Amino acid sequence: MNNFEFKNPTKIIFGKDTISKLSEELPTDARVLILYGGGSIKKNGIYDQVKTALKDISHVEFGGIPANPEYSVLMKALKVIKEESITYLLAVGGGSVIDGTKFLSSAALYEGDSPWDILKDSKRTEVGMPFGTVLTLPATGSEMNSGAVITNAETKEKLGMGGPGLFPQFSILDPQVIQSIPQRQLVNGITDAFTHVLEQYMTYPAAALLQDRFAESIMQTLLEVAPTILKDSTDYNAASNFMWSCTMALNGLIQKGVPTDWAVHAMGHELTALYGIDHARTLAIIAPSHYQYNFEAKKEKLAQYAERVWNITEGSIDDKAYAAIEKTESFFNQMGIETKLSKYTDDFDGTAEIIAKRFTERGWLGLGEHKSLKPEDVEHIVHMAY
Amino acid sequence: MNNFEFKNPTKIIFGKDTISKLSEELPTDARVLILYGGGSIKKNGIYDQVKTALKDISHVEFGGIPANPEYSVLMKALKVIKEESITYLLAVGGGSVIDGTKFLSSAALYEGDSPWDILKDSKRTEVGMPFGTVLTLPATGSEMNSGAVITNAETKEKLGMGGPGLFPQFSILDPQVIQSIPQRQLVNGITDAFTHVLEQYMTYPAAALLQDRFAESIMQTLLEVAPTILKDSTDYNAASNFMWSCTMALNGLIQKGVPTDWAVHAMGHELTALYGIDHARTLAIIAPSHYQYNFEAKKEKLAQYAERVWNITEGSIDDKAYAAIEKTESFFNQMGIETKLSKYTDDFDGTAEIIAKRFTERGWLGLGEHKSLKPEDVEHIVHMAY
Repeated sequence: MNNFEFKNPTKIIFGKDTISKLSEELPTDARVLILYGGGSIKKNGIYDQVKTALKDISHVEFGGIPANPEYSVLMKALKVIKEESITYLLAVGGGSVIDGTKFLSSAALYEGDSPWDILKDSKRTEVGMPFGTVLTLPATGSEMNSGAVITNAETKEKLGMGGPGLFPQFSILDPQVIQSIPQRQLVNGITDAFTHVLEQYMTYPAAALLQDRFAESIMQTLLEVAPTILKDSTDYNAASNFMWSCTMALNGLIQKGVPTDWAVHAMGHELTALYGIDHARTLAIIAPSHYQYNFEAKKEKLAQYAERVWNITEGSIDDKAYAAIEKTESFFNQMGIETKLSKYTDDFDGTAEIIAKRFTERGWLGLGEHKSLKPEDVEHIVHMAY
Repeated sequence: MNNFEFKNPTKIIFGKDTISKLSEELPTDARVLILYGGGSIKKNGIYDQVKTALKDISHVEFGGIPANPEYSVLMKALKVIKEESITYLLAVGGGSVIDGTKFLSSAALYEGDSPWDILKDSKRTEVGMPFGTVLTLPATGSEMNSGAVITNAETKEKLGMGGPGLFPQFSILDPQVIQSIPQRQLVNGITDAFTHVLEQYMTYPAAALLQDRFAESIMQTLLEVAPTILKDSTDYNAASNFMWSCTMALNGLIQKGVPTDWAVHAMGHELTALYGIDHARTLAIIAPSHYQYNFEAKKEKLAQYAERVWNITEGSIDDKAYAAIEKTESFFNQMGIETKLSKYTDDFDGTAEIIAKRFTERGWLGLGEHKSLKPEDVEHIVHMAY
């Protein structure tokens, strides 16, 4: 097991009808900015629950944060924060709204020339404006971690940021919100969380027995509840396990003491930036090719995953490992996710070269758990995913 | 899944040679009281590592905190805290030293007449004197939770305390400390951690699929590493998984959203108070009888545990459930732990009645996950454990 440090101070408030607890978590003298997305919270009743809970707390609103939170939109929200003397941010939404709120938490206290530098120069946020979240879409785990990914439409870039100042003070997780999520988003959420676990698990054996079993537990649980959720999103037992699995998939716990990969995300982000493909779907496009291309380096963990998560007990290590990649791809397919780029765009020719070139230009010269994947490897992997 | 709240702000610093990081975690202007036990840290080098790390930080020491931290000894430490104007506590030890330090953290800021009232009246500690830990004995999980159990030799009582103010600010976990732990303590640690998981798992199915799998993961890992650790405690892979499993067994995570039992601990504490039997061994004495006595209420989870942890796949639910109890008892026996009270004392006659009477007098009238076990049930269970 590798040495590690772990600290996650976010308070989780989980369960039925918990949104009403919101006011207990906010300072009574706070001036709150509520941030949300396209307005679905006004149709499904979450907005009303939040407004009721905040009736005695001073607040204003900023809606319209898009999927893949866009820098130019967030800069408008930053203007509101300054003009309205906001002291506390409240994200009501999924990963995009929460990630956007994290950027604002950092930017609100940033003293440099341009907040874009936080992303461009990978500036770590030690202290941000305090914020909480009401999660409306389980998927990214952003509700209990200190990372965010922000998109710049102008430059077609997706860049990450983070730091200990960006943990939510609290996150309210009411699994009942799942009832009003469109099927497409549910499928994306399951795929996103599942792939998060793979990124922290599908590397090489590192004698981290407990972390391996925790990672497998999350994947087993997601596989177990996925069919129920997609058939009946009012099933509270399935919804609550789905929601908690998404949070646990990326709250830092399973990555501690183990090597991590994240090459699937690095390549996937480029597909979203270039073609606007849903984040989760880009992961499902890249993952199978990535594991095939890096088969020798990953086959021991692929075989362990085959045995423990897919109950594949017959055959050699290679047999099991291949079968596990196939099982993973067909799991995505069965949920209705296409795993080839050509199913999303006719304009895919040259994509592999473009992405490889971008990595070279940005100086991203070593991806994966060994930091050994070069732009030419990226080119191969993306090609395999056509 | 039940509703829950979860917040655990303790910073974990885990791995080889991490004790040297101690000074980074303490405020530079702190006046530190180092608390430790019987002095084994002076033989195994841990004391020297701590002293080296604290060379530039003002500190005094208080040694001699016994196993099952004793109120009268802690009151002497409290006097030192006041006389020396201590601002920060540092526990260097196992669960007893850490639990004692938690009591002192609370008592140092307590404004009532007698600190014993914190225990007697179950007063929740919202704010305590800040403290950190250097863990020398993996077992209790006290290094990453906010609970403590204190013993009063005079009244032969063991009472619990807790509250959000009692999380360590940081805990340093260097698995190399395991090398110098006597076999008896290692066996106790494995048994203690394993039983902690059972208390939070062996109840009834509550549709908490992920929590169940996490609990099973910890037990599987403990079973996997136990033989290696007992054979060769210098095996770092086994030691690190053992240490991290003990912490995860009782840091709050696996108990969230599920019913918990803790009757084994409630009865076990009485055996320690009456006979001075090692805490872990009292759990191994009580657990098998407890599960047999409450078989009908627990058999579904017992059967799930049989399948997933012990790979018992044949037979009816009852068959599997019984087999799991047997496997658990023989796991304790194989490590050299006797699971009958009569192996520890000749003076056991009447113990069941005494313990039942104590529960009645204290008003502890409903133990277990259904709060349905009455003193007469306790009497039966302890009798079965003779």
